This record gives sequence, structure tokens and C-alpha cells, in this order.
Amino acid sequence: MTDLDVTQTATPAPGSGGSVVISVDAMGGDRGPAAVVAGMAESADRNPDIRFIVHGDEAELRRLVARRKSLAGRCDIRHAEGVVTMDDKPSQIVRKGDGTSMWSAIESVKTGEAGAAVSCGNTGALMALSMLRLRKLPGVNRPAIACLWPSLNPQGFNIMLDVGADIRADAHDLLQYALMGASYARNGLGLSEPRVGLLNVGTEEHKGRAELKQAQDMIVAAAETGKFRYVGFVEGGDLPSARVDVIVTDGFTGNIALKTGEGTAKLVGTLLKDAFANSIMSKFAAVLAMTSLKRLQKRIDPRRVNGGIFLGLNGTVVKSHGSADAMGVSAAIKLAFTLAQSGFQDRLAARVAQAAVTAAPGTEAASQ
Amino acid sequence: MTDLDVTQTATPAPGSGGSVVISVDAMGGDRGPAAVVAGMAESADRNPDIRFIVHGDEAELRRLVARRKSLAGRCDIRHAEGVVTMDDKPSQIVRKGDGTSMWSAIESVKTGEAGAAVSCGNTGALMALSMLRLRKLPGVNRPAIACLWPSLNPQGFNIMLDVGADIRADAHDLLQYALMGASYARNGLGLSEPRVGLLNVGTEEHKGRAELKQAQDMIVAAAETGKFRYVGFVEGGDLPSARVDVIVTDGFTGNIALKTGEGTAKLVGTLLKDAFANSIMSKFAAVLAMTSLKRLQKRIDPRRVNGGIFLGLNGTVVKSHGSADAMGVSAAIKLAFTLAQSGFQDRLAARVAQAAVTAAPGTEAASQ
Repeated sequence: MTDLDVTQTATPAPGSGGSVVISVDAMGGDRGPAAVVAGMAESADRNPDIRFIVHGDEAELRRLVARRKSLAGRCDIRHAEGVVTMDDKPSQIVRKGDGTSMWSAIESVKTGEAGAAVSCGNTGALMALSMLRLRKLPGVNRPAIACLWPSLNPQGFNIMLDVGADIRADAHDLLQYALMGASYARNGLGLSEPRVGLLNVGTEEHKGRAELKQAQDMIVAAAETGKFRYVGFVEGGDLPSARVDVIVTDGFTGNIALKTGEGTAKLVGTLLKDAFANSIMSKFAAVLAMTSLKRLQKRIDPRRVNGGIFLGLNGTVVKSHGSADAMGVSAAIKLAFTLAQSGFQDRLAARVAQAAVTAAPGTEAASQ
Repeated sequence: MTDLDVTQTATPAPGSGGSVVISVDAMGGDRGPAAVVAGMAESADRNPDIRFIVHGDEAELRRLVARRKSLAGRCDIRHAEGVVTMDDKPSQIVRKGDGTSMWSAIESVKTGEAGAAVSCGNTGALMALSMLRLRKLPGVNRPAIACLWPSLNPQGFNIMLDVGADIRADAHDLLQYALMGASYARNGLGLSEPRVGLLNVGTEEHKGRAELKQAQDMIVAAAETGKFRYVGFVEGGDLPSARVDVIVTDGFTGNIALKTGEGTAKLVGTLLKDAFANSIMSKFAAVLAMTSLKRLQKRIDPRRVNGGIFLGLNGTVVKSHGSADAMGVSAAIKLAFTLAQSGFQDRLAARVAQAAVTAAPGTEAASQ
């Protein structure tokens, strides 16, 4: 069975009956547990196959969940005293984070009760705890965070990784990112043969850092067994382009690119609003154009592409924006659901293990 | 005399009379010499103090210049046989580029005939030839390319460097970029005390690569004598922000950020155009909003911010976009003129030399 086949799962999805269970950290986001529970309710409204284990202050969660009809009987509440704040350092959380809702949310994935975890909390702490509790997949040196990027492709999004799990990546790490990103594109975006590109300062062969040239050779060699197509070096301008689906880079560069793109889109939005507020004529025009502008806003709304996936661990963790509202949380939950239901985790593990075998000298590549 | 004083020049600007001479490479751009000469004519129309030395095919240039009244008697044509193409590798050009218009354009700065050079040609080749002929300023290890970035600041632009001169930069290089960027902001944008930030993946002290923490300490120590204010680490989202004027980074990261920002702005523009073309109502709205949209377009028009400055050489070189039209070329020429007239080059050299003295152990800092 290959991971092209997204209609069946390799193993039954965790959870009761035919449903998929998502573990949700309700605390630690900028808007508090009310926004998180509202997002869960939005997802439950639309998706009859979803159930939740939700972690945080029991009394408050009980009150918030009771208000939502769609969550009735579909929510298991787990009390956790502690909350990881945005200012907590990952190193502190690793030492004494075991009473927190974040720790508890990851634990439900570790025990197999939930198919994936979602948290709006502190990214560094979430990655540190995820690595500590779920451990890295065999063959993976550095896990990565993959994000979705609005693009001109038919699927509407490209995938970029790493966007900040680690500030370093050597050639072998970049190869792993290519494999993991391709697997995510197949299972998360439904692309049968994703096109992978390596982010560089030019598309010419001779450009860029030495480790990029080495990574390129390794990625080219892995393309066939990894069931993706390698399109070569891509540049910053290609991130939203239709010539690539998965953009591979180190976490330092990826994080800067992600925030630069978000910042630029926000700047254009601000200037556009100013432009329309400028005269009576343009205000009138804005009213007429409302539907069109809303359609555009929806297309590039960061809440719709909310959800950074942690790749390379024994379990799926989705990081939602800290400032996510109900719609943003619901988008992150949907992503977690899609991946949990598709059996993505097992396929990713198989893919990475296969590559490790292929890369090891003197061994035969697995053929399936 | 400090470099805050932009009304007087330290030495008379090169050129005849009170005018400033700009050396222009007419070949090598995507649109050929016609667009370049048209840009020169636009500048000459508006600026009575500008004169040109223009390099390229003499017969063609003579014909193109003769058509423009504003260039009559203000243009010295220098014949050059060769043209550096976009595909030429910098290493080839360094070995056998001495018959080209690019080489000749740089030569006019080297001999002191022109105050600055402008070229639309191959960036890598232009940097390689500029380093070969002009040489690095004493105390500068890696020259940098600085670009202007549309921002919410009163001056309308921020400066980012390096955006691609070198793919590496150590802590000392980043300090030099801070000094050179601050000097450019004073002389090019008229800011008396520019705010400098160091690009990183987070604003917290503990984030990022080791060389960034080291560079931060060196930049903090140099802020007072360098006459700038250090605002700390900045993120990708801060590039267009009003909390910083000069963003310092290595050329790999800077190039990716620059192209990501351009690509995002272009994507939003495309989607906006699609949105307005969607219905009769929205087409009508687009007509009404025309003035406002044009104002926005002007604000973020890449042609208006055209011109990457090479910093850290014995002479000022401005790299225009390869695809620049007359308006773009004219913007690059204006930037070259402003810097040549302000005596920027001498001030930059003094600034870098001063920092080298300050940094050298056991020597006293220069006090002016």
C-alpha cells in the first residue's frame, strides 16, 4: 500500500467507533479557552465524525462546553492545573511542564487515545514538549514545522518547511524535510506527485551555500522512491507560485520568509484600506467592490491557513496561531482531523524509514 | 564635520561646474539601451544639475541621445564593444570583461570623472567588477547590497542590507552593515539618527544564531559613535514597520526576504485584479476606485524604489532592476545623484575607518 491512496487508512484511526479523536490544549492561546472551545464547536457542527479530548481548567471547560450543543457527549475533559505562557522558555517547560494543559494534550497522542493534538500555545515550548514526550521518528535528526502558504496552484496553497523548529539544517535534514513535506502534500493536500523545490538565492546550479548543492544531489536521488518530483532551486518569489508545491529550507530562513510574507500582505492590506478611505468616490467604490474584496480577503485570510504541522515525531501535533479566533482554531482542528483520518502518521514514518534504508550504503532500497 | 550635514559636501562633487556626473552602463538591461537613454532623459528633464557619461555601442547611443533634447550637450558617450549578459558568470566577467560597457561605466567612477555609476546589468557580474576595479574600503571585509523597502515610516521606505552581495556574513560583517546602512539612511533618506535592527527569528535575547548575539553586542557598542540607535532584534514582519529604519542581515537571508516580499505583493496584486474583474458590479467599482488604486500602486510600485546600492567599495555603484523601464532607470539615477551630491562616499569611508579604529584593541576612538 502506498501513501498515494488516501481513501483507506493503514491502521484504524484512533478513537471510538468510526470517529477521529483530536486532543486539544484549551489554554495558552492569546484569547483564552473560550475561543478554543468555540472553534471546537464550529468543527463539531460541520463534522459528525470528530470527537475531542480537551485539556485545561476543568471547571471553566465544563462551563464553556456545556454552552455548546454540538459538543454534547463528544468531549472528554481532562483537568490540568498549569498553563504554558507565551513568555515561558522551552528549557523551563521541559523541566517542569508536566502539570500543564500542553503536556496533557500531547500525552493523549502518546497514549494513542487521540489521533492528533492541537495547541494555540507557545511554539518553542510545544515543540520541546512534543520532542520530549513523542520522541523523534527513527531516521529523523531535526523535526520541522511545515506551514501552508497561499499560492496560485489549483490547491490554493503551497507547503513550506522548516519555518522555525530549528535554526540549523544540514543536507541530510533538508532531504528529510523534502520527504516529509511530500508526504504531507499527498495526505494533507491530496497531491499524487508533489513538486518539491529547494529555497535558494538563485535558480542557477552554481548559486548558494555548499550544503544546498549537497542537499540537491540527495533530493534528486530520493525523488523516485519518495514519489515526488524535484523542480530544482526556487527563489523567494516562487513561494506563492504554481511551479512548486513543497518548498524546503532551514528553519531560520523559513521563519524569516514566513513572517516577511505575512508582513507584506498586511502592509498591502493596510494601504488598500487607506486608499479606499481616501475620498467619497472611493468609499462608494469600496461598497460596490465589497463582495470582490471579501472574496480576496478570504483567499489570503491567515485564519484559513492556520496550522503549522510538526513533522518528524511519533505523533501528529498542529500548532495554531496564538491569536487564533474560533474560525482559526477550527481550521487547525480540521487540518489535524484530515491528517489523523488519512493515517498520515504511519505513512510518514514508513517514508522516512524507507529513505534511511535507501541512504544507508550497501543496503537494498525497499521496493513498495 | 559630521555626516549629518547633508547641505554641504566634504569635497566638491566630481564633474564640471556645479553639476554632478553620473556614469551609466547603457547595455545589459532586459529592455536594451533605448529604455536606459529614455530614463536618462527623464532625469535630465527634471534635474538641471545632472550630466552623464554613457557607455555602450557608440553609433546606437549617438542616435538615441540625439533624439532627446534634454540630453543635448550633457552627455559624454564612451564606446564599448562588449556587453555583459544576464547569463554571464561573474568569474568569467572578472577575467575577460574589460571591453564591456559595464567595466567602462565603473572605470569612470574609479578615475573620478563620475560621482556614481548606474547599471541595469547582471548583479553578480556588476558586484565582481566593482570589487575588482574599485576595491573594498579599508576595514570592510564583505561589501553589501542595500535595498529600499516600502514601509509605514514617514520617509516611506526602510533600508535592508545585505540583499545578496555575499551569502555569508559573520558578526564583524554585520557590524559593518549596520554602520554602512546607518550612513546610507542619513545621506540617502535624510534621517538624522537612523534606528537599526538585526533580523532574527524572534525578538527575545536568547533567540537565533550565535553570530547574531555576538553581532548584537558589537552593534550596541558602536551605536553612539556611529550616530544611530539600535532597536534590537527585528522579525520578518518588521521589514515594512515603523519601529526600524535599517534592517541588517546576511545576504542569503536578505535576498530570500526581498524576493518573498516582492512575490507576496505581486500575488496580492494579481488576486486583487482577479477580484475586480469578477463581476460587472466589481468592474464598475474598479473604475470608481481607479484614483485610489493608482495611489496605492504608486506607493508600492517597485520602479519607484528601484536601485540597490553597493556599499563598502571605493566608489558608489547603483544596481537598477534588469527589467527597469524609463521610470525605473530614472529612479536609480536619482538615487545615484542624491548620494553623489551629498558626498556620501567620503562620509561612508570615514565612518567605516573610524569604526575600525574603535574596534582595534588598545587604540583610542576618534572623537568627531
